[in-house]
Amino acid sequence: MRKPRLMTPGPAMVPEDVLLELARPVIHHRSDEAKQVIVEVSEGLKEVFQTQNDVMILTSSGTGAMEAAVVNVVPPGGKAIVLNAGHFAARWGSLCKAFGLNAVMLDTEWGKPVDPDQVAEALKQHPDAVAVLGTLSETSTGTGHPVEAIGRVVAESDAVFIVDGISGVGAMECRTDEWGIDVLCVGSQKALMLPPGLAFISVSPKAWAKIEAFDARSFYFNLKAARSKAKEFDTPYTPAHTLILALRAALKRIRAEGMEGVWKRHRVMSEACQAGVQALGLELFSARPAEGLTAFRVPEGMKDSQIRGKMAERFGVTTVGGQAKLKGKIVRIGHMGYTDELDVIAALAALEMTLAELGFDVEPGKAVTAAQQVLIGKGAAALA
Amino acid sequence: MRKPRLMTPGPAMVPEDVLLELARPVIHHRSDEAKQVIVEVSEGLKEVFQTQNDVMILTSSGTGAMEAAVVNVVPPGGKAIVLNAGHFAARWGSLCKAFGLNAVMLDTEWGKPVDPDQVAEALKQHPDAVAVLGTLSETSTGTGHPVEAIGRVVAESDAVFIVDGISGVGAMECRTDEWGIDVLCVGSQKALMLPPGLAFISVSPKAWAKIEAFDARSFYFNLKAARSKAKEFDTPYTPAHTLILALRAALKRIRAEGMEGVWKRHRVMSEACQAGVQALGLELFSARPAEGLTAFRVPEGMKDSQIRGKMAERFGVTTVGGQAKLKGKIVRIGHMGYTDELDVIAALAALEMTLAELGFDVEPGKAVTAAQQVLIGKGAAALA
Repeated sequence: MRKPRLMTPGPAMVPEDVLLELARPVIHHRSDEAKQVIVEVSEGLKEVFQTQNDVMILTSSGTGAMEAAVVNVVPPGGKAIVLNAGHFAARWGSLCKAFGLNAVMLDTEWGKPVDPDQVAEALKQHPDAVAVLGTLSETSTGTGHPVEAIGRVVAESDAVFIVDGISGVGAMECRTDEWGIDVLCVGSQKALMLPPGLAFISVSPKAWAKIEAFDARSFYFNLKAARSKAKEFDTPYTPAHTLILALRAALKRIRAEGMEGVWKRHRVMSEACQAGVQALGLELFSARPAEGLTAFRVPEGMKDSQIRGKMAERFGVTTVGGQAKLKGKIVRIGHMGYTDELDVIAALAALEMTLAELGFDVEPGKAVTAAQQVLIGKGAAALA
Repeated sequence: MRKPRLMTPGPAMVPEDVLLELARPVIHHRSDEAKQVIVEVSEGLKEVFQTQNDVMILTSSGTGAMEAAVVNVVPPGGKAIVLNAGHFAARWGSLCKAFGLNAVMLDTEWGKPVDPDQVAEALKQHPDAVAVLGTLSETSTGTGHPVEAIGRVVAESDAVFIVDGISGVGAMECRTDEWGIDVLCVGSQKALMLPPGLAFISVSPKAWAKIEAFDARSFYFNLKAARSKAKEFDTPYTPAHTLILALRAALKRIRAEGMEGVWKRHRVMSEACQAGVQALGLELFSARPAEGLTAFRVPEGMKDSQIRGKMAERFGVTTVGGQAKLKGKIVRIGHMGYTDELDVIAALAALEMTLAELGFDVEPGKAVTAAQQVLIGKGAAALA
């Protein structure tokens, strides 16, 4: 007996009732029933995004939504400032390059948060920038960026603020309208508690003005076409509508908990996970940890594959290692979406037993106890 | 009691065991288990496609695969000949337009098959054409095009033959390598017996040569990136991997039946459906019917919505009407993928009872009997 616990920063675990939606007989995607589902999930997504902007559904991974944002907002040859602070932020740069756009890379050391003052400075140096491309939760480093403060800075300029919220939205506080996020990209397989296959994108009036100013070389990801169909609660091409049906079930859960409750739960889980990891003498990788995952450095003399391998084989707890230049250097534990306090305790228990069995000098129970000290009282309040 | 029977030309019905795969707990998409699934489905897809070419998996609707084909094969400003014979063929033209390509529209009356001689003529007139964009089964008109004969013609030129097999592959004979199809696009929600969300695309060496000749303005649908990941049984971005797991189950069914068996079953079902419809005095719309659906003209004095509405409300049989210029003019009954002989009988029975109840001069039983006459003996042989 070894229950699978998918503690990765996406795909994350999916509630049983949501999975069962996917096993229902397929209905027609242009039926009244399918349209009614889009009506309902559109409302739910606006609540998750905290926005009155249009929110559109794309059948793709989150990267598809990022492509949609870039090619529809930035005209050919246009300039965009990339807040380059991790593997996924760098993808904004790759997207710009692929479409012949002028990407100004504003580098931040991996694991450090982007500095809003530097963004202000870059916008002064590049008043012709059409967009600032940022990240809410950088999954590769486990860092949460100060999107609210960056949003204030960008709002003062003519540029639109495009945010990769793929692993962040639903796991960290994110107020699209209040914070001045013009375009927000989200994936289904993270805190939204679905399998992969859908992406969601919101667009503000400021961003629509940029989009309307030119004909984007875009078809599948054309946002004008998506908007015109979304008005009729439809999509331009056959959507992954069984996933949209499942989304309705996932959103029902999110609305029952309330966004404040969802954010609080993630904050508490991340504090508990961080406390547990640090109690073992492990070092957090990020200077400003994201709330949907915890990244820690692999202790000297050990391999990340040893730790992750034993956690998976011995205890069924799946985690991920580092990407790109962090390969082999960090371990990332996801705690987003369909995850509760006891899942975090279980992952920490697995981690400390794993380290003990691998001969690492660790006092079993320390991580779990430290996490419990965070959770007692606090957790209960958060979930009340 | 009114059982739902989704007799539409996609999304089509999905076997219960395939649906149940989708209800399984989510695994990590970069795990050994997920990779093993890609190994298995890649083999299965090659069998379905009847090809030794690379077959890649995209997380998108079939239109995404069409976009991938166009933007990767035809360089900016390049010329493509569009075999424009229906609503979905016209999408090839829209794609070319969106990406600034030079589309030569070779028009064929809707419902008529494309004439291979005209394709030869067009290739002579346009020796600089990079690609010929055709369709195996035109879902909007219910027409099967002579892809084998067209393939012979295109093979003699320098152009590559790109085929929309979205609703055709798995429902109609299609031999990618033998017939000279350089790029074949397929969707998951048709004869492959899955919900929507995945697309599949095969690329021949002749097409790879075109693709390698320039840097496509493409990121999410970049086929070079897809190929390099496919070699490691991986994908560039997070795939809808729970659908890929379900695909394995669907392919297991297809392999058990064998491609010859699958094609024969569809041929027999389509002959039975055509015979039934015609026995009621209804007129087939297509001069060369596809084998995954049957389209008939709405009889004078009736509305398609009356017929389809009653079939759905009274009997639970979902069909679709016409698209674009065929709106209101035809009814289309799908019989692809997870459909058997008795499903066709059921749909025909619902159709004739519907027409009788609507006051149309029809002799109940005629359609069913005519279909049975096709099925007796023939069906059994086909399925043996």
